[in-house]
Amino acid sequence: MSLTTDQKKEIQDLQSQQYKTKRVTVSTLENILYEAIPALDHGFVRVIDYMGDDTSIVQAARVSYGKGTKKISTDSGLIKYLMRHWHSTPFEMCEIKYHIKLPIFIARQWIRHRTANVNEYSARYSILDKEFYLPSQENLAAQSTSNRQGRGDVLEGKQAEEVLELLKNDAERTYDNYETMLNERFDGSTINENKKGLARELARMNLTLNTYTQWYWKTDLLNLMNFLRLRADSHAQYEIRVYADIMLDTLKKWVPTTYDAFMDYRIGATEVSAKGKLTIQKLIKGENVDLESSGLSKREWNELMTAFDLKDKLI
Amino acid sequence: MSLTTDQKKEIQDLQSQQYKTKRVTVSTLENILYEAIPALDHGFVRVIDYMGDDTSIVQAARVSYGKGTKKISTDSGLIKYLMRHWHSTPFEMCEIKYHIKLPIFIARQWIRHRTANVNEYSARYSILDKEFYLPSQENLAAQSTSNRQGRGDVLEGKQAEEVLELLKNDAERTYDNYETMLNERFDGSTINENKKGLARELARMNLTLNTYTQWYWKTDLLNLMNFLRLRADSHAQYEIRVYADIMLDTLKKWVPTTYDAFMDYRIGATEVSAKGKLTIQKLIKGENVDLESSGLSKREWNELMTAFDLKDKLI
Amino acid sequence: MSLTTDQKKEIQDLQSQQYKTKRVTVSTLENILYEAIPALDHGFVRVIDYMGDDTSIVQAARVSYGKGTKKISTDSGLIKYLMRHWHSTPFEMCEIKYHIKLPIFIARQWIRHRTANVNEYSARYSILDKEFYLPSQENLAAQSTSNRQGRGDVLEGKQAEEVLELLKNDAERTYDNYETMLNERFDGSTINENKKGLARELARMNLTLNTYTQWYWKTDLLNLMNFLRLRADSHAQYEIRVYADIMLDTLKKWVPTTYDAFMDYRIGATEVSAKGKLTIQKLIKGENVDLESSGLSKREWNELMTAFDLKDKLI
Amino acid sequence: MSLTTDQKKEIQDLQSQQYKTKRVTVSTLENILYEAIPALDHGFVRVIDYMGDDTSIVQAARVSYGKGTKKISTDSGLIKYLMRHWHSTPFEMCEIKYHIKLPIFIARQWIRHRTANVNEYSARYSILDKEFYLPSQENLAAQSTSNRQGRGDVLEGKQAEEVLELLKNDAERTYDNYETMLNERFDGSTINENKKGLARELARMNLTLNTYTQWYWKTDLLNLMNFLRLRADSHAQYEIRVYADIMLDTLKKWVPTTYDAFMDYRIGATEVSAKGKLTIQKLIKGENVDLESSGLSKREWNELMTAFDLKDKLI
Repeated sequence: MSLTTDQKKEIQDLQSQQYKTKRVTVSTLENILYEAIPALDHGFVRVIDYMGDDTSIVQAARVSYGKGTKKISTDSGLIKYLMRHWHSTPFEMCEIKYHIKLPIFIARQWIRHRTANVNEYSARYSILDKEFYLPSQENLAAQSTSNRQGRGDVLEGKQAEEVLELLKNDAERTYDNYETMLNERFDGSTINENKKGLARELARMNLTLNTYTQWYWKTDLLNLMNFLRLRADSHAQYEIRVYADIMLDTLKKWVPTTYDAFMDYRIGATEVSAKGKLTIQKLIKGENVDLESSGLSKREWNELMTAFDLKDKLI
Repeated sequence: MSLTTDQKKEIQDLQSQQYKTKRVTVSTLENILYEAIPALDHGFVRVIDYMGDDTSIVQAARVSYGKGTKKISTDSGLIKYLMRHWHSTPFEMCEIKYHIKLPIFIARQWIRHRTANVNEYSARYSILDKEFYLPSQENLAAQSTSNRQGRGDVLEGKQAEEVLELLKNDAERTYDNYETMLNERFDGSTINENKKGLARELARMNLTLNTYTQWYWKTDLLNLMNFLRLRADSHAQYEIRVYADIMLDTLKKWVPTTYDAFMDYRIGATEVSAKGKLTIQKLIKGENVDLESSGLSKREWNELMTAFDLKDKLI
Repeated sequence: MSLTTDQKKEIQDLQSQQYKTKRVTVSTLENILYEAIPALDHGFVRVIDYMGDDTSIVQAARVSYGKGTKKISTDSGLIKYLMRHWHSTPFEMCEIKYHIKLPIFIARQWIRHRTANVNEYSARYSILDKEFYLPSQENLAAQSTSNRQGRGDVLEGKQAEEVLELLKNDAERTYDNYETMLNERFDGSTINENKKGLARELARMNLTLNTYTQWYWKTDLLNLMNFLRLRADSHAQYEIRVYADIMLDTLKKWVPTTYDAFMDYRIGATEVSAKGKLTIQKLIKGENVDLESSGLSKREWNELMTAFDLKDKLI
Repeated sequence: MSLTTDQKKEIQDLQSQQYKTKRVTVSTLENILYEAIPALDHGFVRVIDYMGDDTSIVQAARVSYGKGTKKISTDSGLIKYLMRHWHSTPFEMCEIKYHIKLPIFIARQWIRHRTANVNEYSARYSILDKEFYLPSQENLAAQSTSNRQGRGDVLEGKQAEEVLELLKNDAERTYDNYETMLNERFDGSTINENKKGLARELARMNLTLNTYTQWYWKTDLLNLMNFLRLRADSHAQYEIRVYADIMLDTLKKWVPTTYDAFMDYRIGATEVSAKGKLTIQKLIKGENVDLESSGLSKREWNELMTAFDLKDKLI
C-alpha cells in the first residue's frame, strides 16, 4: 500500500475533524476511523462512516422511545437470543461504510454480495493506479487434488520464481501498453502531443485481473455478518479472507456484544442435518453407528466428524 | 399524539446526550433529532439516526480519500448532474432512521417499499396502544366518480357525523373486546384473576385497521427519495402524504443540495413520452396538432397538457 | 373457502388449456396448477405458474449449454452439496407464483419477507370480500405463560364460546358499517341512491384484521425455502404455518430432489454453537459436562438437549 | 462466436424437446428458445426459460382468478396506464432467464444491476475459454474530449493497427502464461506431467479484462426494463449496448404490448425538470426565454433542446 502525500494529508484532515453529535457514538471505532489498514501488497480497508451500535439493535427490537436498553446483561441476553434464533431485522438497524482497495479478481467475488451499496472507481472515467497484486511466496499454492476449487501444497523453488516472474511481467507489460493506448501516463502526463488516446472505457480491457481497483462499500450489520460468515471462512479464497479478517476486527471494535454472539453462533457454529443429528445421538448414547447405517455420504460423515473434532472417527 | 411522561423523559434524555465524533455531522438535522413531530391525530415521525450528508454523495461518486468536495458550487453541480442522469449508487451512501407511529392501513401501503429495514412493534408479544385514527371532517371524502382509487367531494352534515360516529364506536368496541379476550387492559392490568387470556397473536385480529402501530424504519437516501416521489405526490392517499410531507422537510434539513435537485428533477418534473414529445415539438413550432393526429389517448393528452399547465388545451 | 360459480369456471378454463412448450415442465406440479387448495376457513393457496425444475439448478450451477444433467445420482449429489454448503444462487434459478387468500393479520407477517413480488387486491379500488377468519375451537389458545409470543393451553367451555362470539360479532358489525359508509354492498349494489359513499380508501379502515385479503405472490426457490424454513417451523404462528405446510407440499411436487435436501439440511437440521459443540463433544467422549461448565445459558442448554432429543438431560 | 460440436448438439437437443403445459406460452419466444444469438466477436445471448406473458401483468394487476384479460384493447390500455404511472409490481410477475457470453470488463458493468439472479462460470473451478474481445476497426474510438466518460472520433490508420496489435498480443501472451502456470491447456491436457499447476483461483489473475466469461442471468420483466433503459441508451458503452439491443428484441418477441409501452414511455421518453417545464411552456406560448432567465445550466439547456429536437435553439 503506497498512499501519496496528498492522500495521507486528506486522511489526516478527516481524522482531525471533531464534531458534536447527539447520535450514538462508538469511541473504539472512532479511534480507527478513516485509517487505511493494509491488506495484501497494495490494498487497504478504511472505515469511513458508521451508524448505530449494540444498543441500536436492542432499541429497534423493542421499538422503544429511548435507548431501549435496560441493563447491559439484559441487552446482551437479547442480542444473543436474536442471533441464535436467526432474527434478522434488528441487526439491519446498524450501518457501516468502508473504502476498500482490492485486486479486480477479488472485487468480482465480493460484488456477488448484492445487499450492499457500492461506488467503484471508474476506469471509463479515470486511469487506474499502476498497482497489481503479486502473491507472496507462501501463498503461491498448487491446485488442490482433492477439492476442485481449492488450494493444495505451496509451489516451491524454481517453479514459484517462474510463476511470480510471469505474473509480474505480464501485469507490467499490459499496464505499459494500457498507457501507450491511452497516450497518457498514470500520473496524467501525455505521451505524444500529436496523437489521440484510445477511449478509457476501451483501453482498460488490456489490464490483467490482478490490477487494483477501489470502491466505497456500505452495508448493514446483518449483511456484513453474512459476508463475513462466508468470506472469513477457511473455504474462502485466501485473498478475500485477508479483507474479511480485517473487517472482523472492525466488527469487534464497533459492536462487541454482537461480535461475541456472531463468533459463537455463526463463525464457530456448525449446522447438523436431520440424519447427522441421529448419528450424534447414537454416539452420545454409546450406540453402534457406522457410515452405512447413518445414511450419510462419506463426505458428509467426515464433515460431521471434523465439525465435532472427532478425528478418530474419520474414514 | 399523546406521549406518556415516561416517553417524554426518555426522549429528553436522548436529546440531551452529546458525544464527540469524527463523522460528518449535520447541525440542522441534529436540532430535531429524536423529536416527535406530530402526524394525523395520534401519529408521529421521529428522526432517530442518520449517516452522511451532501458531501458524502460527492465523496462516494469520486471514490475519494478525503472529503471528496472541491468547492460548494462544483459539488452542487455534480449532485444535480447525478440526479438528472438517474445515477443511483452515490445517493445510496447516506442513510436515515425514523421512528414512526401510524395507522395500520397506512402501514400496509408503506411496507410495500421493500428496500428499507423495518422493526415493527409486535402485537404477538405486546398489547397495542388504545389509539385509532379518525379523519378530521375536511378529510372525510366521498369516493371519486372519475378515478376508481381516488377521493371526490367532502362528505358533509349528517352523513359526515354518522361516518365519524361509526368509525369511533367500532374502533372503541373492538378494542374493548380485544382487552376482554386478552383478559388484560392496555395498561397491563389483569381484568379477571381467575381467567386465562386469549393469546395475543390471536386477539389482535379483532382490531380495526385504523388502530395505530409503530415501527423503526431505516432506508438510504435513494430509496427515501423513491418513497417520497410516490408518497408526497398528489395521487397518494392523503393519510400517507401527511407523513411524506413531514419527511420531505427532514430531507431538506439533512441534505439541502440534494433536496433542491430532487424538487427540480423529480417532484416538480414530468416524464414526456415519445409521442408526447412530438406533440410538444409541434406546439412549440406553432404547427397544428390535435388529439387524433397526436396518437395520444384522451387521458394522456390531458395529463400532458396539465403537466405543462396548458389549461386551454384540455379536452 | 367459497368460490363463486364464475370463479370456479375461470379456474376450470385455465386448467383445461394446453400448450406445447420447449421449456422444462413438471407434470406432478401441472396436475395441481390453478387449483384452489383450501387453507383455514376461507383461504386458499393456488399455484399459478412456475419456471424450472431440479435440473435447472444443476444446469445453472454448471453454466451448461444443454440440460446440465449427467445422471440422476450425480445431479442429486450436486443439489445436496449445494444445500449443505449454503450455496444460494443456483436455487434462485427456479421461480414460482402463487395466488393466496389469507387473513390480513397473517398477510402482515408474510409481507415481511421482502424478496418476493406481490400484487395485493386493492381496497382503495375495490370492495373486499365479506369473509373473516374465525379460529376453530381447538386453535383458540391462551397466551403462553412461558413464552411471551407463544400460545399456551386451549381455551375451553364458556370462555371459548364468548371469544368466538366476540370475534364473529365484531367482524360482522364492522363489515356492515363498512358497507353503510361505502353506501354499497359487497355484491356491488348501491344502498341509497340519494347518498354518496365514503371513499373506499377510507372506509376500509373500519375492517378488522381477520378480514380476508388476497394476493399474487411470486418468489424464487431460494427465497421460498427461506420463507418455509421460518414459517413451517413449530415456532411460527399456527395460522401462517397452515399456508406454509401446503406450500411445502407444492415444493415436493415441484422439485423433489431439492425438497429432500431441504428437509434434511434445513427443516430437520439444527445449528450448534461453538460452545454447544464442546458440550456435545464431551457427551460423546463420555466426559463430565454440566450447565455451569458448559458456558451455556439454561435456555441454550435445554434447546441443545431438545434438538438432539436428549430428554433426560433437560434441566 | 464458436460453439463446439458438442455444444451445438446440446442446444439442438433442447430445441427439439416438446412438452405439454397448462402454463401461458409465447410461441414467438419459443421459436428462438435456447438459440445462441451472436454478440460482439465471440459472445452470445440465449433465452433459456421464461414465465408469463403480457396477460400475466394484467392478471396480477387485477388479482384475478382466471386469465385476468377482458379484451385485447382493454388489456393494452391497462398496461400502458401501469407503465405511464410507474406502477412496478405487475411487471415483476413475468420472469426471463438468459445464458450470456460476454467480456469480463462488460460483465463488471452488467453485474451492478443487483436485482437479478446470476450464476457465473467459475474460474476458481474451471479453465476459461481461450477467447478475448477485440473491437472491430470502426469501434476503436478515441477518448471523447467533451465527455470524460465517452468516446470521440474513431482511431484510424497506423494507430488503429497498433492498438489492435497490442490488444491481441497481450491477450494471447497472458493467456499462454495462464496455461503455463496452470500446467494445463484450455482443452484439459496436461503440459508437463512432472509438475504441479498453480491453483486456478490464482492463475486467473493473469488474464486480461477482455477475456470472455459466461453466466446464467435471470430477472423479472420490471428489472429487465430497468436494465435496458440504461444499457440500450446512447450513453451506454457500445459493447454492452450490443447485448441490450439483442435483448430488446427478445423483449418484443416475449411481451409485445409491454414492449410498445416501454418504447413510448421509457426508451423514447424524456424527463423534464420543473425549470425545464417553465421553459417549454414559454416556448409554446411564444414568450421570450433565454438561458439566463431559464434558470437552467448551459448543459441542461442543451439537453432539453436536444430532447425536443430543437436544434436551432442549441447554444
